Amino acid sequence: MLSRVVRIVESFGSDTPALRVSEIARRADLHIATASRLIEELVGHGWLHRHADRRIRIGVRLWELASRASPTLDLREAAMPFLEDLHTAVGHHVQLGVREEREALFVERLSAPGAIDSLTHVAGRLPLHASSAGLVLLAHAPAWLQERVLAEPLPAYTSLTVVDPGQLRALLAEVRTSGSALCRGFIDTRAAGVAVPLRGPDETVVAALSVIVPNDDTARMHVPALRAAARGISRAMGTHQRLAPRDLRLAE
Amino acid sequence: MLSRVVRIVESFGSDTPALRVSEIARRADLHIATASRLIEELVGHGWLHRHADRRIRIGVRLWELASRASPTLDLREAAMPFLEDLHTAVGHHVQLGVREEREALFVERLSAPGAIDSLTHVAGRLPLHASSAGLVLLAHAPAWLQERVLAEPLPAYTSLTVVDPGQLRALLAEVRTSGSALCRGFIDTRAAGVAVPLRGPDETVVAALSVIVPNDDTARMHVPALRAAARGISRAMGTHQRLAPRDLRLAE
Repeated sequence: MLSRVVRIVESFGSDTPALRVSEIARRADLHIATASRLIEELVGHGWLHRHADRRIRIGVRLWELASRASPTLDLREAAMPFLEDLHTAVGHHVQLGVREEREALFVERLSAPGAIDSLTHVAGRLPLHASSAGLVLLAHAPAWLQERVLAEPLPAYTSLTVVDPGQLRALLAEVRTSGSALCRGFIDTRAAGVAVPLRGPDETVVAALSVIVPNDDTARMHVPALRAAARGISRAMGTHQRLAPRDLRLAE
Repeated sequence: MLSRVVRIVESFGSDTPALRVSEIARRADLHIATASRLIEELVGHGWLHRHADRRIRIGVRLWELASRASPTLDLREAAMPFLEDLHTAVGHHVQLGVREEREALFVERLSAPGAIDSLTHVAGRLPLHASSAGLVLLAHAPAWLQERVLAEPLPAYTSLTVVDPGQLRALLAEVRTSGSALCRGFIDTRAAGVAVPLRGPDETVVAALSVIVPNDDTARMHVPALRAAARGISRAMGTHQRLAPRDLRLAE
Protein backbone atom coordinates (compact mmCIF):
# COMPACT_ATOMS: atom_id res chain seq x y z
CA MET A 1 0.00 0.00 0.00
CA LEU A 2 2.75 2.41 0.98
CA SER A 3 4.58 1.82 -2.29
CA ARG A 4 1.37 2.75 -4.14
CA VAL A 5 1.27 6.10 -2.37
CA VAL A 6 4.93 6.63 -3.18
CA ARG A 7 4.30 5.81 -6.85
CA ILE A 8 1.37 8.25 -6.98
CA VAL A 9 3.42 11.13 -5.58
CA GLU A 10 6.42 10.18 -7.75
CA SER A 11 4.21 10.57 -10.84
CA PHE A 12 4.60 14.33 -10.57
CA GLY A 13 7.62 16.23 -11.85
CA SER A 14 8.61 19.69 -13.10
CA ASP A 15 7.49 18.74 -16.57
CA THR A 16 4.27 17.19 -15.24
CA PRO A 17 3.11 19.30 -12.29
CA ALA A 18 -0.58 18.72 -13.05
CA LEU A 19 -1.99 15.32 -14.02
CA ARG A 20 -5.39 13.74 -14.58
CA VAL A 21 -6.37 10.82 -12.38
CA SER A 22 -6.11 8.50 -15.38
CA GLU A 23 -2.56 9.72 -16.12
CA ILE A 24 -1.52 9.17 -12.51
CA ALA A 25 -3.00 5.65 -12.58
CA ARG A 26 -1.02 4.86 -15.72
CA ARG A 27 2.24 6.32 -14.44
CA ALA A 28 1.87 4.62 -11.04
CA ASP A 29 0.77 1.35 -12.66
CA LEU A 30 -2.44 1.20 -10.62
CA HIS A 31 -6.05 0.36 -11.38
CA ILE A 32 -7.93 3.59 -11.91
CA ALA A 33 -10.30 2.78 -9.03
CA THR A 34 -7.38 2.22 -6.64
CA ALA A 35 -5.57 5.34 -7.83
CA SER A 36 -8.77 7.36 -7.58
CA ARG A 37 -9.43 6.28 -3.99
CA LEU A 38 -5.85 6.94 -2.82
CA ILE A 39 -5.74 10.31 -4.61
CA GLU A 40 -8.99 11.27 -2.89
CA GLU A 41 -7.47 10.42 0.49
CA LEU A 42 -4.27 12.34 -0.28
CA VAL A 43 -6.34 15.35 -1.36
CA GLY A 44 -8.14 15.11 1.98
CA HIS A 45 -4.81 15.31 3.81
CA GLY A 46 -3.69 18.29 1.71
CA TRP A 47 -0.81 16.30 0.20
CA LEU A 48 -2.38 16.55 -3.24
CA HIS A 49 -4.57 19.33 -4.57
CA ARG A 50 -7.43 19.09 -7.03
CA HIS A 51 -7.69 22.12 -9.29
CA ALA A 52 -10.85 23.60 -10.74
CA ASP A 53 -10.05 21.80 -14.03
CA ARG A 54 -10.07 18.45 -12.09
CA ARG A 55 -6.36 17.97 -12.60
CA ILE A 56 -4.27 16.97 -9.59
CA ARG A 57 -1.14 18.72 -8.32
CA ILE A 58 1.17 18.36 -5.33
CA GLY A 59 -0.45 20.07 -2.34
CA VAL A 60 1.10 23.02 -0.55
CA ARG A 61 0.92 21.00 2.68
CA LEU A 62 3.36 18.38 1.36
CA TRP A 63 5.74 21.09 0.18
CA GLU A 64 5.51 22.74 3.58
CA LEU A 65 6.21 19.51 5.47
CA ALA A 66 9.12 18.57 3.24
CA SER A 67 10.57 22.10 3.30
CA ARG A 68 10.27 22.76 6.99
CA ALA A 69 12.09 19.64 8.05
CA SER A 70 14.27 19.37 4.96
CA PRO A 71 17.77 18.08 5.60
CA THR A 72 18.98 20.77 3.22
CA LEU A 73 17.23 23.61 5.07
CA ASP A 74 20.19 24.45 7.31
CA LEU A 75 22.45 24.48 4.29
CA ARG A 76 20.09 26.64 2.23
CA GLU A 77 19.44 29.12 5.04
CA ALA A 78 23.12 29.47 5.84
CA ALA A 79 23.94 29.82 2.15
CA MET A 80 21.32 32.32 1.02
CA PRO A 81 22.98 35.60 2.12
CA PHE A 82 26.25 34.50 0.52
CA LEU A 83 24.48 33.34 -2.65
CA GLU A 84 22.91 36.77 -2.91
CA ASP A 85 26.22 38.58 -2.49
CA LEU A 86 27.85 36.30 -5.03
CA HIS A 87 24.95 36.75 -7.40
CA THR A 88 25.18 40.53 -7.14
CA ALA A 89 28.93 40.38 -7.76
CA VAL A 90 28.82 37.90 -10.65
CA GLY A 91 25.53 38.94 -12.24
CA HIS A 92 24.83 35.45 -13.59
CA HIS A 93 23.29 32.25 -12.27
CA VAL A 94 24.48 31.07 -8.89
CA GLN A 95 23.51 27.64 -7.63
CA LEU A 96 23.97 25.27 -4.75
CA GLY A 97 24.01 21.54 -5.48
CA VAL A 98 24.22 18.38 -3.39
CA ARG A 99 24.91 14.85 -4.52
CA GLU A 100 21.87 12.60 -4.57
CA GLU A 101 23.07 9.16 -5.55
CA ARG A 102 24.61 9.61 -8.99
CA GLU A 103 23.28 13.05 -9.85
CA ALA A 104 23.75 16.63 -8.73
CA LEU A 105 20.53 17.95 -7.19
CA PHE A 106 20.23 21.75 -7.14
CA VAL A 107 18.72 22.86 -3.84
CA GLU A 108 18.98 26.61 -4.36
CA ARG A 109 19.43 28.86 -7.33
CA LEU A 110 19.51 32.59 -7.98
CA SER A 111 19.21 34.04 -11.43
CA ALA A 112 18.50 37.38 -13.04
CA PRO A 113 16.50 38.26 -16.16
CA GLY A 114 19.66 39.60 -17.85
CA ALA A 115 21.83 36.57 -17.10
CA ILE A 116 22.86 33.98 -19.66
CA ASP A 117 20.07 31.54 -20.36
CA SER A 118 20.08 28.48 -18.11
CA LEU A 119 17.63 25.69 -17.65
CA THR A 120 18.53 24.40 -14.21
CA HIS A 121 15.76 24.64 -11.68
CA VAL A 122 15.54 24.46 -7.96
CA ALA A 123 15.14 20.72 -7.32
CA GLY A 124 16.43 20.01 -10.84
CA ARG A 125 19.11 17.38 -11.44
CA LEU A 126 22.16 16.97 -13.67
CA PRO A 127 24.49 14.02 -14.20
CA LEU A 128 27.69 14.25 -12.13
CA HIS A 129 30.12 14.11 -15.06
CA ALA A 130 28.64 16.90 -17.16
CA SER A 131 28.36 19.88 -14.81
CA SER A 132 30.96 21.78 -12.79
CA ALA A 133 28.96 21.23 -9.58
CA GLY A 134 28.64 17.54 -10.44
CA LEU A 135 32.40 17.18 -11.04
CA VAL A 136 33.15 18.74 -7.66
CA LEU A 137 30.68 16.40 -5.95
CA LEU A 138 31.98 13.37 -7.85
CA ALA A 139 35.62 14.28 -7.12
CA HIS A 140 34.82 14.12 -3.39
CA ALA A 141 32.46 11.12 -3.54
CA PRO A 142 33.44 7.67 -2.23
CA ALA A 143 35.88 5.84 -4.53
CA TRP A 144 33.42 3.01 -5.30
CA LEU A 145 30.91 5.54 -6.63
CA GLN A 146 33.53 7.24 -8.80
CA GLU A 147 34.48 3.84 -10.23
CA ARG A 148 30.89 2.99 -10.93
CA VAL A 149 30.30 6.29 -12.78
CA LEU A 150 33.56 5.86 -14.76
CA ALA A 151 32.59 2.30 -15.72
CA GLU A 152 29.39 3.40 -17.42
CA PRO A 153 28.68 4.87 -20.83
CA LEU A 154 28.24 8.60 -20.18
CA PRO A 155 26.07 10.91 -22.28
CA ALA A 156 27.79 13.74 -24.16
CA TYR A 157 25.77 16.95 -24.40
CA THR A 158 28.24 18.65 -26.75
CA SER A 159 31.51 17.63 -28.40
CA LEU A 160 33.24 19.17 -25.36
CA THR A 161 31.61 17.02 -22.67
CA VAL A 162 34.31 14.78 -21.18
CA VAL A 163 33.03 11.21 -21.40
CA ASP A 164 36.26 9.22 -21.79
CA PRO A 165 36.95 7.41 -18.47
CA GLY A 166 40.68 8.15 -18.53
CA GLN A 167 40.18 11.86 -19.25
CA LEU A 168 37.42 12.06 -16.66
CA ARG A 169 39.66 10.41 -14.03
CA ALA A 170 42.38 13.00 -14.75
CA LEU A 171 39.81 15.78 -14.56
CA LEU A 172 38.58 14.60 -11.16
CA ALA A 173 42.17 14.53 -9.84
CA GLU A 174 42.66 18.08 -11.12
CA VAL A 175 39.43 19.20 -9.42
CA ARG A 176 40.71 17.81 -6.12
CA THR A 177 44.16 19.39 -6.55
CA SER A 178 43.02 22.80 -7.73
CA GLY A 179 39.97 22.98 -5.46
CA SER A 180 37.67 24.01 -8.30
CA ALA A 181 36.03 22.72 -11.47
CA LEU A 182 35.73 24.60 -14.74
CA CYS A 183 33.46 23.22 -17.46
CA ARG A 184 33.54 25.19 -20.67
CA GLY A 185 30.83 24.14 -23.07
CA PHE A 186 30.12 20.76 -21.45
CA ILE A 187 26.34 21.17 -21.78
CA ASP A 188 26.02 24.14 -24.10
CA THR A 189 28.94 25.56 -26.04
CA ARG A 190 27.92 29.11 -25.11
CA ALA A 191 28.10 28.57 -21.35
CA ALA A 192 30.74 27.76 -18.77
CA GLY A 193 30.24 26.39 -15.27
CA VAL A 194 32.63 27.11 -12.41
CA ALA A 195 32.26 25.28 -9.10
CA VAL A 196 34.00 24.90 -5.75
CA PRO A 197 33.38 22.46 -2.90
CA LEU A 198 31.50 23.56 0.21
CA ARG A 199 32.60 21.85 3.41
CA GLY A 200 30.50 21.05 6.45
CA PRO A 201 31.50 21.51 10.09
CA ASP A 202 33.51 18.24 9.96
CA GLU A 203 35.39 19.34 6.79
CA THR A 204 33.65 16.80 4.51
CA VAL A 205 32.33 18.14 1.22
CA VAL A 206 28.55 18.53 1.63
CA ALA A 207 27.69 20.60 -1.45
CA ALA A 208 29.04 22.42 -4.49
CA LEU A 209 28.67 26.13 -5.12
CA SER A 210 28.67 27.11 -8.78
CA VAL A 211 28.12 29.94 -11.24
CA ILE A 212 27.03 29.70 -14.87
CA VAL A 213 28.69 32.37 -16.99
CA PRO A 214 29.32 33.01 -20.68
CA ASN A 215 31.95 30.66 -22.13
CA ASP A 216 35.04 32.83 -22.48
CA ASP A 217 38.52 33.15 -20.96
CA THR A 218 37.24 35.13 -17.99
CA ALA A 219 35.19 32.24 -16.59
CA ARG A 220 37.96 31.08 -14.26
CA MET A 221 38.27 34.48 -12.60
CA HIS A 222 35.13 33.71 -10.57
CA VAL A 223 36.95 31.07 -8.52
CA PRO A 224 38.16 33.38 -5.71
CA ALA A 225 34.67 34.85 -5.18
CA LEU A 226 33.18 31.34 -5.13
CA ARG A 227 35.80 30.17 -2.66
CA ALA A 228 35.21 33.11 -0.34
CA ALA A 229 31.45 32.53 -0.42
CA ALA A 230 31.89 28.78 0.23
CA ARG A 231 34.04 29.52 3.29
CA GLY A 232 31.46 31.99 4.58
CA ILE A 233 28.67 29.46 4.19
CA SER A 234 30.71 26.76 5.99
CA ARG A 235 31.31 29.16 8.86
CA ALA A 236 27.62 30.17 8.99
CA MET A 237 26.56 26.50 9.05
CA GLY A 238 28.77 25.84 12.04
CA THR A 239 27.28 28.65 14.08
CA HIS A 240 23.77 28.53 12.65
CA GLN A 241 21.10 28.20 15.31
CA ARG A 242 17.87 26.48 14.38
CA LEU A 243 14.91 28.65 15.31
CA ALA A 244 11.47 27.41 16.20
CA PRO A 245 8.86 28.29 13.54
CA ARG A 246 6.06 29.07 15.98
CA ASP A 247 8.25 31.54 17.82
CA LEU A 248 8.00 34.14 15.13
CA ARG A 249 8.47 37.25 17.17
CA LEU A 250 9.70 39.64 14.56
CA ALA A 251 8.03 38.37 11.46
CA GLU A 252 5.15 40.78 11.10
CA MET B 1 -2.92 2.90 6.39
CA LEU B 2 -2.46 6.06 4.35
CA SER B 3 -3.38 8.22 7.32
CA ARG B 4 -0.64 6.46 9.32
CA VAL B 5 1.93 7.44 6.71
CA VAL B 6 0.61 11.01 6.77
CA ARG B 7 0.84 11.09 10.57
CA ILE B 8 4.42 9.83 10.49
CA VAL B 9 5.55 12.50 8.02
CA GLU B 10 3.54 15.18 9.87
CA SER B 11 5.50 14.37 13.04
CA PHE B 12 8.40 16.38 11.68
CA GLY B 13 8.63 20.16 11.89
CA SER B 14 11.21 22.96 11.93
CA ASP B 15 11.55 22.54 15.67
CA THR B 16 11.72 18.75 15.36
CA PRO B 17 13.63 17.94 12.17
CA ALA B 18 15.18 14.77 13.63
CA LEU B 19 13.21 12.27 15.72
CA ARG B 20 13.77 8.85 17.24
CA VAL B 21 11.47 6.03 16.11
CA SER B 22 9.86 6.00 19.57
CA GLU B 23 9.16 9.75 19.36
CA ILE B 24 7.58 9.36 15.92
CA ALA B 25 5.41 6.48 17.20
CA ARG B 26 4.21 8.64 20.10
CA ARG B 27 3.53 11.72 17.95
CA ALA B 28 1.77 9.67 15.26
CA ASP B 29 -0.14 7.67 17.87
CA LEU B 30 1.07 4.33 16.49
CA HIS B 31 2.36 1.14 18.02
CA ILE B 32 6.12 1.21 17.92
CA ALA B 33 6.23 -1.97 15.80
CA THR B 34 3.86 -0.44 13.22
CA ALA B 35 5.73 2.86 13.19
CA SER B 36 9.04 1.06 12.91
CA ARG B 37 7.91 -0.99 9.91
CA LEU B 38 6.42 1.99 8.05
CA ILE B 39 9.47 4.16 8.80
CA GLU B 40 11.69 1.41 7.43
CA GLU B 41 9.66 1.33 4.22
CA LEU B 42 9.72 5.14 3.90
CA VAL B 43 13.50 5.11 4.41
CA GLY B 44 13.72 2.55 1.59
CA HIS B 45 11.84 4.93 -0.72
CA GLY B 46 14.09 7.86 0.27
CA TRP B 47 11.17 9.76 1.79
CA LEU B 48 12.73 9.52 5.23
CA HIS B 49 16.42 9.34 6.05
CA ARG B 50 18.10 7.52 8.92
CA HIS B 51 21.13 9.35 10.25
CA ALA B 52 24.26 7.80 11.73
CA ASP B 53 22.84 8.53 15.21
CA ARG B 54 19.74 6.41 14.32
CA ARG B 55 17.48 9.44 14.32
CA ILE B 56 15.08 9.89 11.42
CA ARG B 57 14.73 12.99 9.24
CA ILE B 58 12.75 13.91 6.13
CA GLY B 59 14.56 12.52 3.09
CA VAL B 60 15.93 14.72 0.33
CA ARG B 61 13.81 12.72 -2.14
CA LEU B 62 10.56 13.91 -0.55
CA TRP B 63 11.78 17.51 -0.56
CA GLU B 64 12.73 17.15 -4.22
CA LEU B 65 9.36 15.69 -5.22
CA ALA B 66 7.42 18.31 -3.31
CA SER B 67 9.61 21.16 -4.56
CA ARG B 68 9.71 20.20 -8.22
CA ALA B 69 5.99 19.96 -8.62
CA SER B 70 5.12 22.54 -5.98
CA PRO B 71 2.11 24.69 -6.79
CA THR B 72 4.12 27.62 -5.47
CA LEU B 73 7.12 26.98 -7.73
CA ASP B 74 5.94 29.23 -10.56
CA LEU B 75 5.27 31.99 -8.07
CA ARG B 76 8.62 31.58 -6.35
CA GLU B 77 10.60 31.41 -9.58
CA ALA B 78 8.86 34.45 -11.03
CA ALA B 79 9.32 36.33 -7.76
CA MET B 80 12.95 35.61 -6.98
CA PRO B 81 14.67 38.24 -9.19
CA PHE B 82 12.28 40.91 -7.89
CA LEU B 83 12.72 39.76 -4.28
CA GLU B 84 16.46 40.12 -4.73
CA ASP B 85 16.21 43.62 -6.15
CA LEU B 86 13.84 44.63 -3.38
CA HIS B 87 16.08 43.07 -0.79
CA THR B 88 19.10 44.96 -2.12
CA ALA B 89 17.12 48.21 -2.11
CA VAL B 90 15.54 47.77 1.34
CA GLY B 91 18.39 45.94 3.09
CA HIS B 92 16.03 44.10 5.43
CA HIS B 93 13.95 40.93 5.33
CA VAL B 94 11.81 40.44 2.25
CA GLN B 95 9.25 37.66 2.17
CA LEU B 96 6.57 36.14 0.02
CA GLY B 97 3.53 34.62 1.73
CA VAL B 98 0.44 32.74 0.59
CA ARG B 99 -2.71 31.97 2.54
CA GLU B 100 -3.01 28.40 3.69
CA GLU B 101 -6.37 28.07 5.38
CA ARG B 102 -6.26 30.52 8.29
CA GLU B 103 -2.55 31.26 8.34
CA ALA B 104 0.05 33.01 6.21
CA LEU B 105 2.60 30.50 4.92
CA PHE B 106 5.92 32.02 3.86
CA VAL B 107 7.12 30.35 0.68
CA GLU B 108 10.21 32.46 0.08
CA ARG B 109 12.35 34.72 2.20
CA LEU B 110 15.52 36.72 1.78
CA SER B 111 17.43 38.12 4.70
CA ALA B 112 20.86 39.51 5.44
CA PRO B 113 23.10 39.14 8.47
CA GLY B 114 22.86 42.88 9.19
CA ALA B 115 19.05 43.09 8.95
CA ILE B 116 16.74 43.49 11.92
CA ASP B 117 16.25 40.19 13.74
CA SER B 118 13.34 38.15 12.45
CA LEU B 119 12.24 34.64 13.16
CA THR B 120 10.13 33.83 10.11
CA HIS B 121 11.39 30.92 8.09
CA VAL B 122 10.76 29.59 4.65
CA ALA B 123 7.76 27.31 5.15
CA GLY B 124 7.03 29.06 8.46
CA ARG B 125 3.52 30.23 9.33
CA LEU B 126 1.92 33.22 11.06
CA PRO B 127 -1.68 33.94 12.00
CA LEU B 128 -3.47 36.15 9.47
CA HIS B 129 -4.41 38.94 11.89
CA ALA B 130 -0.95 39.61 13.34
CA SER B 131 1.31 40.11 10.33
CA SER B 132 1.24 42.61 7.47
CA ALA B 133 1.32 39.78 4.92
CA GLY B 134 -1.47 38.02 6.80
CA LEU B 135 -3.64 41.15 6.85
CA VAL B 136 -3.25 41.58 3.08
CA LEU B 137 -4.18 37.93 2.53
CA LEU B 138 -7.11 38.14 4.96
CA ALA B 139 -8.36 41.40 3.41
CA HIS B 140 -8.65 39.61 0.06
CA ALA B 141 -9.92 36.28 1.41
CA PRO B 142 -13.53 35.14 0.97
CA ALA B 143 -15.99 36.95 3.27
CA TRP B 144 -16.94 33.78 5.17
CA LEU B 145 -13.30 33.22 6.12
CA GLN B 146 -12.91 36.82 7.30
CA GLU B 147 -16.04 36.45 9.44
CA ARG B 148 -14.76 33.22 10.93
CA VAL B 149 -11.42 34.79 11.87
CA LEU B 150 -13.18 37.86 13.32
CA ALA B 151 -15.51 35.66 15.38
CA GLU B 152 -12.64 33.96 17.21
CA PRO B 153 -10.52 35.01 20.15
CA LEU B 154 -7.27 36.20 18.57
CA PRO B 155 -3.87 36.06 20.27
CA ALA B 156 -2.08 39.37 21.01
CA TYR B 157 1.70 39.25 20.67
CA THR B 158 2.19 42.78 22.01
CA SER B 159 -0.11 45.50 23.31
CA LEU B 160 -0.18 46.82 19.73
CA THR B 161 -1.57 43.68 18.04
CA VAL B 162 -5.08 44.48 16.80
CA VAL B 163 -7.38 41.79 18.23
CA ASP B 164 -10.67 43.67 18.61
CA PRO B 165 -13.06 42.46 15.86
CA GLY B 166 -14.36 45.97 15.09
CA GLN B 167 -10.89 47.47 14.84
CA LEU B 168 -9.68 44.53 12.77
CA ARG B 169 -12.63 44.90 10.38
CA ALA B 170 -11.78 48.58 9.89
CA LEU B 171 -8.13 47.69 9.39
CA LEU B 172 -9.02 45.16 6.68
CA ALA B 173 -11.13 47.76 4.88
CA GLU B 174 -8.21 50.20 5.04
CA VAL B 175 -5.85 47.54 3.62
CA ARG B 176 -8.21 47.05 0.67
CA THR B 177 -8.61 50.79 0.09
CA SER B 178 -4.95 51.77 0.46
CA GLY B 179 -3.57 48.68 -1.26
CA SER B 180 -1.07 48.02 1.51
CA ALA B 181 -0.81 46.92 5.14
CA LEU B 182 1.44 48.46 7.76
CA CYS B 183 1.89 46.68 11.08
CA ARG B 184 4.00 48.57 13.57
CA GLY B 185 4.90 46.48 16.58
CA PHE B 186 2.17 43.86 16.11
CA ILE B 187 4.54 40.97 16.92
CA ASP B 188 7.55 42.75 18.35
CA THR B 189 7.52 46.42 19.31
CA ARG B 190 10.89 46.95 17.61
CA ALA B 191 9.77 45.78 14.17
CA ALA B 192 7.32 46.90 11.51
CA GLY B 193 5.89 44.86 8.65
CA VAL B 194 4.79 46.39 5.36
CA ALA B 195 2.93 44.28 2.79
CA VAL B 196 1.19 44.64 -0.56
CA PRO B 197 -0.98 42.18 -2.49
CA LEU B 198 0.42 40.25 -5.43
CA ARG B 199 -2.07 39.47 -8.17
CA GLY B 200 -2.14 36.48 -10.49
CA PRO B 201 -2.86 36.53 -14.22
CA ASP B 202 -6.63 36.72 -13.51
CA GLU B 203 -6.18 39.69 -11.10
CA THR B 204 -7.05 37.68 -7.97
CA VAL B 205 -4.71 38.13 -5.01
CA VAL B 206 -2.48 35.04 -4.89
CA ALA B 207 0.19 36.14 -2.42
CA ALA B 208 1.49 38.97 -0.26
CA LEU B 209 4.89 40.56 -0.63
CA SER B 210 6.29 42.06 2.57
CA VAL B 211 9.34 43.60 4.20
CA ILE B 212 10.26 43.61 7.90
CA VAL B 213 11.97 46.83 8.89
CA PRO B 214 12.75 48.71 12.11
CA ASN B 215 9.63 50.21 13.70
CA ASP B 216 9.89 53.91 12.92
CA ASP B 217 8.11 56.56 10.84
CA THR B 218 9.99 55.58 7.69
CA ALA B 219 8.40 52.12 7.50
CA ARG B 220 5.63 53.25 5.16
CA MET B 221 8.05 54.63 2.59
CA HIS B 222 8.73 51.06 1.40
CA VAL B 223 5.25 50.78 -0.11
CA PRO B 224 6.12 52.09 -3.61
CA ALA B 225 9.10 49.71 -3.96
CA LEU B 226 6.92 46.79 -2.80
CA ARG B 227 4.19 47.76 -5.23
CA ALA B 228 6.60 48.00 -8.15
CA ALA B 229 8.08 44.59 -7.31
CA ALA B 230 4.60 43.03 -6.96
CA ARG B 231 3.63 44.33 -10.40
CA GLY B 232 6.84 42.96 -11.89
CA ILE B 233 6.22 39.54 -10.37
CA SER B 234 2.64 39.48 -11.66
CA ARG B 235 3.86 40.30 -15.13
CA ALA B 236 6.61 37.65 -14.95
CA MET B 237 4.09 35.01 -13.82
CA GLY B 238 1.92 35.72 -16.81
CA THR B 239 4.71 35.22 -19.28
CA HIS B 240 6.67 32.60 -17.35
CA GLN B 241 7.30 29.45 -19.34
CA ARG B 242 7.67 26.20 -17.44
CA LEU B 243 10.88 24.48 -18.43
CA ALA B 244 11.50 20.76 -18.37
CA PRO B 245 14.02 19.71 -15.70
CA ARG B 246 15.76 17.10 -17.84
CA ASP B 247 16.33 19.63 -20.61
CA LEU B 248 19.10 21.35 -18.73
CA ARG B 249 21.10 22.69 -21.62
CA LEU B 250 22.89 25.54 -19.96
CA ALA B 251 23.17 24.34 -16.43
CA GLU B 252 26.76 23.19 -16.36
